[in-house]
Amino acid sequence: MKSAPAYSEISVRRVASGGDGSESDDVLAVEEPLEIRIGFPDGAQKAVSITMRTPGEDGELAAGFLFTEGIITSTDQIKQIRHCGLKIGKGNGSLDRTSALNSNTIRVDINEVLNIDLKRLERNFYTTSSCGVCGKASIEALATGVRQITSDLKVAANIIHSLPSKLRDDQAGFEMTGGLHASALFYANGEIDIIREDVGRHNALDKVIGAKFMTGETPLSETILLVSGRASFELVQKGLMAGIPILAAVGAPSSLAVELANEYGMTLIGFVRDERFNIYCGGQRISVLAPAVN
Amino acid sequence: MKSAPAYSEISVRRVASGGDGSESDDVLAVEEPLEIRIGFPDGAQKAVSITMRTPGEDGELAAGFLFTEGIITSTDQIKQIRHCGLKIGKGNGSLDRTSALNSNTIRVDINEVLNIDLKRLERNFYTTSSCGVCGKASIEALATGVRQITSDLKVAANIIHSLPSKLRDDQAGFEMTGGLHASALFYANGEIDIIREDVGRHNALDKVIGAKFMTGETPLSETILLVSGRASFELVQKGLMAGIPILAAVGAPSSLAVELANEYGMTLIGFVRDERFNIYCGGQRISVLAPAVN
Repeated sequence: MKSAPAYSEISVRRVASGGDGSESDDVLAVEEPLEIRIGFPDGAQKAVSITMRTPGEDGELAAGFLFTEGIITSTDQIKQIRHCGLKIGKGNGSLDRTSALNSNTIRVDINEVLNIDLKRLERNFYTTSSCGVCGKASIEALATGVRQITSDLKVAANIIHSLPSKLRDDQAGFEMTGGLHASALFYANGEIDIIREDVGRHNALDKVIGAKFMTGETPLSETILLVSGRASFELVQKGLMAGIPILAAVGAPSSLAVELANEYGMTLIGFVRDERFNIYCGGQRISVLAPAVN
Repeated sequence: MKSAPAYSEISVRRVASGGDGSESDDVLAVEEPLEIRIGFPDGAQKAVSITMRTPGEDGELAAGFLFTEGIITSTDQIKQIRHCGLKIGKGNGSLDRTSALNSNTIRVDINEVLNIDLKRLERNFYTTSSCGVCGKASIEALATGVRQITSDLKVAANIIHSLPSKLRDDQAGFEMTGGLHASALFYANGEIDIIREDVGRHNALDKVIGAKFMTGETPLSETILLVSGRASFELVQKGLMAGIPILAAVGAPSSLAVELANEYGMTLIGFVRDERFNIYCGGQRISVLAPAVN
């Protein structure tokens, strides 16, 4: 599936203290809107989201979004995923501007409507009818469709320590632009499985989960998710939808991220850097002491 | 206006390489949903947004959101802004959980409907009717209501160099939690005017702009905006709505942020750190060479 390029070159003026601001080239992370549509068997279409994303893996992003938002639950529901517009796939050189722009709408054609959660399509996923978004009720309303994590995965602390440098080694886009978030899945032995980058951290995670969902690998009960930034409510929610037992963040978690992870049995780890990390909940999955040497 | 607390204490297990993971206290940035409603003169209400935000300055956030999204244009349109729920403002000690949760809905009561852009209330601000979100049309559609920046503000490069350390000095929340974005406005002489923090960078900016909007200080034609993270399309759009001529980011800009800033005459600066920065567009407002010494 062809997308617009993920990087864009630009001439910038670089200013250093005392310098005169010479012109030179810089590489930007591309940010473009992606409209995700559902195509129904009767030919009707419905736009369900517009997200500002970095082009690339748009199919994974669309599938991951629909899955982590609880709209679709099985790949059997998907007939095909394709970009709208006329000029996609006309060759494999770099896309011209017109075709790149045409690729900013992607349609997920579904096979049948019966098992699709149409209420979810109302865009306004979170609206409440009463005045007051309240506590437990709020978390449950916001986290609809999330299941309890029961995985008995156990990982040694030194595996967790090793993840950030592996993430950085594979962050090609961040290396070039300094402007991309990353999400990566690791096996329990600390080997990297898949990494995706995006200007939006939720998109990077949707791409990772979408890729695994499309190959039938969800729930991801034996994996560790590492995100390059902070752990928000939204990332924990998406991780829970995919059944991920351990979420580790290079940055800080928010209060609601910890509450949600704790409520549903996910292990949440923050500030994974410089050979340190904090465990916020689910500590039973992390073995801190090295096993005794025989 | 009372809000839920912005920080939350929690016990964490701190793990360092070779250590045993001792328990200690940590401070989290609070993330809670805020539903923003409009209250119409006839008593009807409409929820226009739910955002995951850090409590505090909810009134500024609501006003800033409605203003930067183009829904309201003047403080004359606002009758009052208040939290829903019964237990707000019952005392000035720390709020209990119930009252904190009641404060997660805020209502902006408006005086009259005629001049409110009701189309904007459809939540789905960005939906297009055709298949394809295309280029110039797309930017114009996404940036509706944005005006050309005509400010002839000029700032010396050494002022820009000085901003990040001033931002950090005032980032009380980040200091405590490591988990908050900041937006700050500076005067042309480099003095800080206002700073706001939030788990969401768009919220931090809405709070800043909302505070200035409510005191009648928009457009902010003589100010410099510094944001702690990356410069996205959304931040540029909000800055343009407030008439801010210079946006400086500690992180990288995205491609669409540069396109939008360039299109509307905003100066966009990125990677403002370590006595360096890059000028992406609008360089005429930055005087790089120091004036000659007489």
